[in-house]
Amino acid sequence: MQYASWMETLGEGFIGEILKAAQNPSMISFAGGLPALELFPDQELQRCFQRVFEEQGKSALQYAQTAGHPQLREWIAQQHKRNGKPVSMEEIVVTTGSQQGLSLLAQTFLDPGDVVFVETPTYLGAIQAFQGFRAQMIMIPCDEQGIIPEELETLLKEVTPKFLYIIPNYQNPSGKVMGLERRRELLRVAQAYDLLVVEDNPYGELRFEGEGYPDLIDLGENVIYLGTFSKVLAPGLRVGYVVADTDIIDHLCLTKEGVDLHSNNLTQRAVFEFLKEGLLPAHIQKLRALYKERRGAMVEAIENYLGDDVDMIVPSGGLFLWARFKKINNSFDYVQETIRQNVLYVPGALFYPDGRVTSEVRLNYSCSTPEMIEEGVQRLARAMQA
Amino acid sequence: MQYASWMETLGEGFIGEILKAAQNPSMISFAGGLPALELFPDQELQRCFQRVFEEQGKSALQYAQTAGHPQLREWIAQQHKRNGKPVSMEEIVVTTGSQQGLSLLAQTFLDPGDVVFVETPTYLGAIQAFQGFRAQMIMIPCDEQGIIPEELETLLKEVTPKFLYIIPNYQNPSGKVMGLERRRELLRVAQAYDLLVVEDNPYGELRFEGEGYPDLIDLGENVIYLGTFSKVLAPGLRVGYVVADTDIIDHLCLTKEGVDLHSNNLTQRAVFEFLKEGLLPAHIQKLRALYKERRGAMVEAIENYLGDDVDMIVPSGGLFLWARFKKINNSFDYVQETIRQNVLYVPGALFYPDGRVTSEVRLNYSCSTPEMIEEGVQRLARAMQA
Repeated sequence: MQYASWMETLGEGFIGEILKAAQNPSMISFAGGLPALELFPDQELQRCFQRVFEEQGKSALQYAQTAGHPQLREWIAQQHKRNGKPVSMEEIVVTTGSQQGLSLLAQTFLDPGDVVFVETPTYLGAIQAFQGFRAQMIMIPCDEQGIIPEELETLLKEVTPKFLYIIPNYQNPSGKVMGLERRRELLRVAQAYDLLVVEDNPYGELRFEGEGYPDLIDLGENVIYLGTFSKVLAPGLRVGYVVADTDIIDHLCLTKEGVDLHSNNLTQRAVFEFLKEGLLPAHIQKLRALYKERRGAMVEAIENYLGDDVDMIVPSGGLFLWARFKKINNSFDYVQETIRQNVLYVPGALFYPDGRVTSEVRLNYSCSTPEMIEEGVQRLARAMQA
Repeated sequence: MQYASWMETLGEGFIGEILKAAQNPSMISFAGGLPALELFPDQELQRCFQRVFEEQGKSALQYAQTAGHPQLREWIAQQHKRNGKPVSMEEIVVTTGSQQGLSLLAQTFLDPGDVVFVETPTYLGAIQAFQGFRAQMIMIPCDEQGIIPEELETLLKEVTPKFLYIIPNYQNPSGKVMGLERRRELLRVAQAYDLLVVEDNPYGELRFEGEGYPDLIDLGENVIYLGTFSKVLAPGLRVGYVVADTDIIDHLCLTKEGVDLHSNNLTQRAVFEFLKEGLLPAHIQKLRALYKERRGAMVEAIENYLGDDVDMIVPSGGLFLWARFKKINNSFDYVQETIRQNVLYVPGALFYPDGRVTSEVRLNYSCSTPEMIEEGVQRLARAMQA
């Protein structure tokens, strides 16, 4: 038995491990990226599924178009602009979550060894998706607003990547936001070097304070946008999408044909019903309020129980808080100790394609109550003293 | 903009074209592989989805395990044997249809240029999946029972493929069935050369006459089995699975993590409800009766309207009839003529990785009434005279 050589570059499937460990009821998990279960609009969704069965019945169970359910694509198109202009449904492909968007992009653009630029640190699911297509990832230095345009430009003079992958809003894992002027500078550099920018925006709507900024795809050329309903609706439905020019969408569809033919037909129609009813904005308001409260609880608990032992970036939205444990050297090795204390985080090393040793950790607050967050941070503090 | 080099090897996305053309209401399409819409058990499925919402509610909307919903995996495991022994749920991964199974296998096993053995002809979706990972496909000569073991052995002395891909029951596109003795011979050769066999079985339950044979995975070692609920339940739900030893399943899950994290949680649970209720066997009986009638209608219409102009293989199950138009040289070029007559088939060339010129066509009879089948074959006959 001989597997493909890229599999040797993989770790132990940590995301899968997280999803499993998160199912142990005595574990307080700050590790996953799970939305708050209690806010899932299950009754509304139940009605939406029922309506699809009653009104569209059997046709919702048949094979469907690779690019996605036309009405859903149309709805998504209306939410976006590309370089200031309206988007048409031909510029949309529906994917099974943003994760599939990442994987389709990698498969569609990358030859083995091709270079992809990423933020420092970057989303570990993106690292996995790109590894699956033998990418060579190069980390671009970042400051508190993300990618530093001058550093990007310096590297672009030496290397030609297939694309740059960034999360401009409440970045995973760092929680950072890219400001408007930075977005414009980044796009100026991208345009000058004909650089394709992949903008991943799962958390943009989950804003606690401050203003929101326009999407990169709205501000310039050469941007591919990844959207998802996982964080604002329900991840178990696996509905995301890509916005890009039609030539790129057509190529992504060709790839998707070989990968899974098309996304779940019934689910796409039910999600469209939910959106059509206009149920999303009020739901997002609920999410913002709850996550803001939980973000506050985590910041407070860290100040109270870990205090000067930790540096943290207080996020103004999203699901994650990025912190550095000053008293340890390697947060990866430390996972075993915290698991003994029944608390889980994701070690920072997993967000660096080079797997560097770091004392950073990613802490998720969206799926724990303030009480659980306080208890969990106390457990972290206990682990720290062990 | 530079796409990955493998994309240049692709045709024009014919499966996607089929799915689109099939939506033109005046077209009689023998081209798709669509199950009969009118038999979809939409009311039973509606109840199953409703029950999941009522009894499991929000947990069905959360992120879930990469390998699939445990109860569904357990149910699937009980339907199969591996080399005569019971299968455990650890030997199952749930996929978004068999197409994803093919793509995951290709990604997990193939380095660029690796060789895959296929039947002559073979399923065009498999060709697409394998192309997506830069496979070199070699066609093994076939007779009326599929792969000829002696020919396979001859090639194995020269070339070492990563795996052999076959559809032993009502093969797509040829409709052929591999008999029991042939299955055993094939596995003897596979064992002698340590050859991995990928057994794809979407149509095995759709038997019109004759006896069914044991699955290859039940008869020997080194078999990976692809199953799906697309043809016996509903393709729009995108639920399939892979059965293999746990090491292979673990590797497929690592790949799947990067590809889409996991399959639709809600849908997996609803499909499990359907299966648990024992609704599948009676439904399969209905499918067999309907498809047998339609197969008969197509054979009769071909005899009546095309007669000696056509050679065909009368299938004893499945969805497809494979035929050769004696009066034309290239059924690919002929598509435009038949589209003018509002009838669609898949030209045989698409089922050969070398894209050879052939007068063969694949005709699907599952989603057309006997009247439509008669009318469609008449249109084919008219196209032939044009």
